[in-house]
Amino acid sequence: MTSKRWDRVWVGARLATMVPIAADPYGCADDAAIAVAGGRIAWIGPAADARARARAEGVPLEEVGGRWITPGLIDCHTHLVWGGTRVAEFEQRLNGASYADIARAGGGIRATVAATRAASADALLAAAARRARRLAAEGVTTIEVKSGYGLELAAERKLLEVARALSSAVPLRVRTTYLGLHALPAEREADRAGFVADVAGPWLQALAAEGLVDAVDAFCESIAFSAQETERLLAAARVLGLRAHLHAGQLSDLGAAELAARYQALSADHLEFVSDAGPDALAAAGTVAVLLPAAYFTLRQTTPPPVARLRAAGVALAVATDCNPGSAPCTSLLTALNMACTLFGLTPAEALAGATRHAARALGLEGEVGTLEVGKCADFALFDIERPAELCYGIGSNPCVGVVAGGRPVAALHNSP
Amino acid sequence: MTSKRWDRVWVGARLATMVPIAADPYGCADDAAIAVAGGRIAWIGPAADARARARAEGVPLEEVGGRWITPGLIDCHTHLVWGGTRVAEFEQRLNGASYADIARAGGGIRATVAATRAASADALLAAAARRARRLAAEGVTTIEVKSGYGLELAAERKLLEVARALSSAVPLRVRTTYLGLHALPAEREADRAGFVADVAGPWLQALAAEGLVDAVDAFCESIAFSAQETERLLAAARVLGLRAHLHAGQLSDLGAAELAARYQALSADHLEFVSDAGPDALAAAGTVAVLLPAAYFTLRQTTPPPVARLRAAGVALAVATDCNPGSAPCTSLLTALNMACTLFGLTPAEALAGATRHAARALGLEGEVGTLEVGKCADFALFDIERPAELCYGIGSNPCVGVVAGGRPVAALHNSP
Repeated sequence: MTSKRWDRVWVGARLATMVPIAADPYGCADDAAIAVAGGRIAWIGPAADARARARAEGVPLEEVGGRWITPGLIDCHTHLVWGGTRVAEFEQRLNGASYADIARAGGGIRATVAATRAASADALLAAAARRARRLAAEGVTTIEVKSGYGLELAAERKLLEVARALSSAVPLRVRTTYLGLHALPAEREADRAGFVADVAGPWLQALAAEGLVDAVDAFCESIAFSAQETERLLAAARVLGLRAHLHAGQLSDLGAAELAARYQALSADHLEFVSDAGPDALAAAGTVAVLLPAAYFTLRQTTPPPVARLRAAGVALAVATDCNPGSAPCTSLLTALNMACTLFGLTPAEALAGATRHAARALGLEGEVGTLEVGKCADFALFDIERPAELCYGIGSNPCVGVVAGGRPVAALHNSP
Repeated sequence: MTSKRWDRVWVGARLATMVPIAADPYGCADDAAIAVAGGRIAWIGPAADARARARAEGVPLEEVGGRWITPGLIDCHTHLVWGGTRVAEFEQRLNGASYADIARAGGGIRATVAATRAASADALLAAAARRARRLAAEGVTTIEVKSGYGLELAAERKLLEVARALSSAVPLRVRTTYLGLHALPAEREADRAGFVADVAGPWLQALAAEGLVDAVDAFCESIAFSAQETERLLAAARVLGLRAHLHAGQLSDLGAAELAARYQALSADHLEFVSDAGPDALAAAGTVAVLLPAAYFTLRQTTPPPVARLRAAGVALAVATDCNPGSAPCTSLLTALNMACTLFGLTPAEALAGATRHAARALGLEGEVGTLEVGKCADFALFDIERPAELCYGIGSNPCVGVVAGGRPVAALHNSP
């Protein structure tokens, strides 16, 4: 009991530990306390016990007055670092321009690639930090950031370095993903095979050696890269001991879910189009299905991911923003949770698990974050809500009233535009 | 030129006046200034001229560094004042309960009516002010608030008094609407005609005499009130010189658009279901069509309002949150603008006009607010954006960096949960 000295304790909270207990998927505890030491959760228990011990040992104590505490939220799929904007293109499309018109005018993902290549690391960091602060203000403490707007070694490196630097600008844990196969850059159009070979060969090796790559990813899609091209990258990553995410079945089914499973990918993401065998394969491999409702919404898609089949197969479901300038200009994970419930029919408990416990698993961080458990990182968020489902209920509300990252209270983030 | 002395001037702005100029629906001006006097817009012109005059006359001056200034946004359809919450019901539905199950358990609108009747005015005001601050933090300076959760004289009065009091708690211009015919309260089930007679008779007269009613409204719908019942209220309001809004065609077409037009209503709202004759009737009457995409989204509707037909008929389109605890728990007008573009195909210029110029008309306030023009109320918002369309682009971002209401800068609202 008198193990490690507590650095600080939060008392009088209602906890949603997100460790399911029998019929309670949120793992709730009333009038509870959570103590931290050395950046980790040191103790969870009744508020009265915590008050007594804190008084006896002179531990700094915060009374939270019945507010809810959840694990810090996790946004496990973002493309947060990019240059330029795509607002003009958004407006052109709504004014009647077709995707083809926009592409001919140099728009679309290639516009973002050009702007990202041209931008300084400082400018990229400032723009990404602004978006990251919006996420953090809602209680997000861990994010994944993908590259894929560089599409040449130097620019991919710059992007991943900016992603690594983000955690010094905003109190977030950042996992980086090398999305080498995102789009074929214009200058490699006549050299598709050579590009794939570079991405999966020397570029991957260089970036991995520099410690910039936590995982790899590919956009396995009819308009992007084939399953065979994707597998080149997955195989190369496996040799280096790197795990994978996969953009799988967003617009069509190329068997990407099965491919992700075959390589025991951390996650298969999107999944609007997946074969009947896909869910079982994902379940068997322990691959998390990451649902991205803001992209589905923005693209006005009409075929949702097969949630019932994924559930029945026992696949863990995560939910993320997919924050990117084209198909999901979304910096609100809470809005993504609302959309996951409204558009995909997730229960609030499933959606919240998708932004905590299962999102942690999608990043290979299930031993570190995603639940309130002794020994895990002391990342949590305080909410002024009636019950956990309220985190999925509002459109545009932000009930987050405090964030603790690595055991330290984070200064108010609400002022960020 | 040396008319009235300026109280203050904002300089170096890009203006979206929302007064269309030829091919520019936003009415933009670069490197401009806007001066206020006595709570009104006193002058709009080039920044250099404003700087010179401010220097000469010692007028307080704010350099805004190229930020955009728009008219204060207007949310012209809300049910912002209610008691209790409907979060548990939201979760029950997603866990599989039917609307009928929930109604049997006392849920739905009747639950909100019971909680609103039971709540103190102070409690209602605190809850509504919290929601209003979220709207205001995005640049909203005028809102409409409907009653309709009282459904008995005293509770309707309490609700309208709270709506009036809101403007002392949050820097917002508030227009009140007596939504007498929202639902039939449980205790009047055997006395439907008597209820309608009370609503359109003594209750309306009492509340209007107390100065609590700026307009009336009815939920004209198969599950609510017939066109004939609705007309009782409209006719009674006309006698008192009160104009109307109408919940028209949300779930079915009862001819409510034509009815609204016949009574020259300020607005007809929802309009997912409207006859072929409806748009022309609305246009001829000058009635604004208020689109409510957050409700459409939350209810998972699939038939959008006939935007092309409304456009072709020349109907002014407004966009609002419909903020309410059941079908649109939305406190973000910017998200509603995004949804209006994404789900209904409005252009960003149409959506923004729908939250400024046309929303003002929907409230009968077109002489006071809704555009940046000399003589109008000095209500405006400052945004850190690249172009006006960006206000419709983001999901979860809030680029509002300042609000001026009645000529006075409003203290930061971003800290409100």
